[in-house]
Amino acid sequence: MFDLFDGQTVGGKVIINLSSDTPATMRRAAEWAAQQGATLIVGGVMVPEELVATDSSYVFYSGPETVVRRYESMLAVIGRVDFVGEDPALAQLFYQAQLTIFLTSLAAYLHATALVGSAGLGSDVILRYATETFDNLSYYLPEAAENIASGQHPGEAASIVMMSATADHIVGASTEAKLDLALPQAVKSLYDRAIAAGHGGETWTSLYKVIVQ
Amino acid sequence: MFDLFDGQTVGGKVIINLSSDTPATMRRAAEWAAQQGATLIVGGVMVPEELVATDSSYVFYSGPETVVRRYESMLAVIGRVDFVGEDPALAQLFYQAQLTIFLTSLAAYLHATALVGSAGLGSDVILRYATETFDNLSYYLPEAAENIASGQHPGEAASIVMMSATADHIVGASTEAKLDLALPQAVKSLYDRAIAAGHGGETWTSLYKVIVQ
Repeated sequence: MFDLFDGQTVGGKVIINLSSDTPATMRRAAEWAAQQGATLIVGGVMVPEELVATDSSYVFYSGPETVVRRYESMLAVIGRVDFVGEDPALAQLFYQAQLTIFLTSLAAYLHATALVGSAGLGSDVILRYATETFDNLSYYLPEAAENIASGQHPGEAASIVMMSATADHIVGASTEAKLDLALPQAVKSLYDRAIAAGHGGETWTSLYKVIVQ
Repeated sequence: MFDLFDGQTVGGKVIINLSSDTPATMRRAAEWAAQQGATLIVGGVMVPEELVATDSSYVFYSGPETVVRRYESMLAVIGRVDFVGEDPALAQLFYQAQLTIFLTSLAAYLHATALVGSAGLGSDVILRYATETFDNLSYYLPEAAENIASGQHPGEAASIVMMSATADHIVGASTEAKLDLALPQAVKSLYDRAIAAGHGGETWTSLYKVIVQ
């Protein structure tokens, strides 16, 4: 963005940046724009290219709400306008939060397919099971969000200790199959550190405490 | 399992092991059972405790199919019997493949919530977006499975290079938010190595080649 506007006069203009960068960079960019007498609106486009401007398209926006609303009908051509707050960083934080789920889950799917592939089975075999697993994941989220909000992570049904045994077996199975270990080891490391911090009897949402440490 | 049967006479028996371990351990256990004149059936229970013996319960089984079928009506009490092959390791490989998706995706959800939480927003804010993202993920799987099967990863719509920029920004945003970096760095590392191996212009399924070697 800085390259693009280098040497240009932007005073009085509204700049809407839909490219992705870190939240801190967006906050700096908003300050820079303000110094030039311009207003920065930060956007994060939430659908792949082929879905832009379709009904399933939506875009996170952050910055001054009155400015976002002024251009809302124009912006709606790209996708649904989802205003998430005045802090310019927010649109990118929401974007990156969603993409964290997206990139990580899809990498996990590839790893799962490789595990079954190590026994000589094709990618078609695990497809319907992977689909079922993804389609059931959001079942676990409302309670997870409550646990995070309350800071309570009751582990009666399935504890960190139980689930860490599986995380260990996945690393073991991946090692036996000579697969890359970066992803399963990262997951195992979260479980290991939760146990080390004394959360072994709590449920998996307790990993949140390791992530925010 | 070995501890459990130590000193016992198991000749002529069918042992059905529903506990989890690595595929190689299961193959060793099957050999051990055969040496004792017993038959090992390996199972992997695919639902949490509270759903066992309900309609949504299913269990992967591997080992001699005739033996699995002989006990199928008894086993169906636990959940649907899903026979996946004669290789004793398979039930555990299928189990661990599914749990790879499960544990990794849920950890990614926690990380996403922590990212948005770093701007002071509660876990309720990202919940509906996370739900939407999980519910849409399986849309990408059929084409992914085809790419893996064919070894072709055409990257017209979204390339590894484009998606790696996001993987980098997630590490950057997580660093700024002082979050644990193990998980986002593992994902970034897959993208970095795919680019280093010359797959930057292909689509994300090309990460499979990094995972299997």
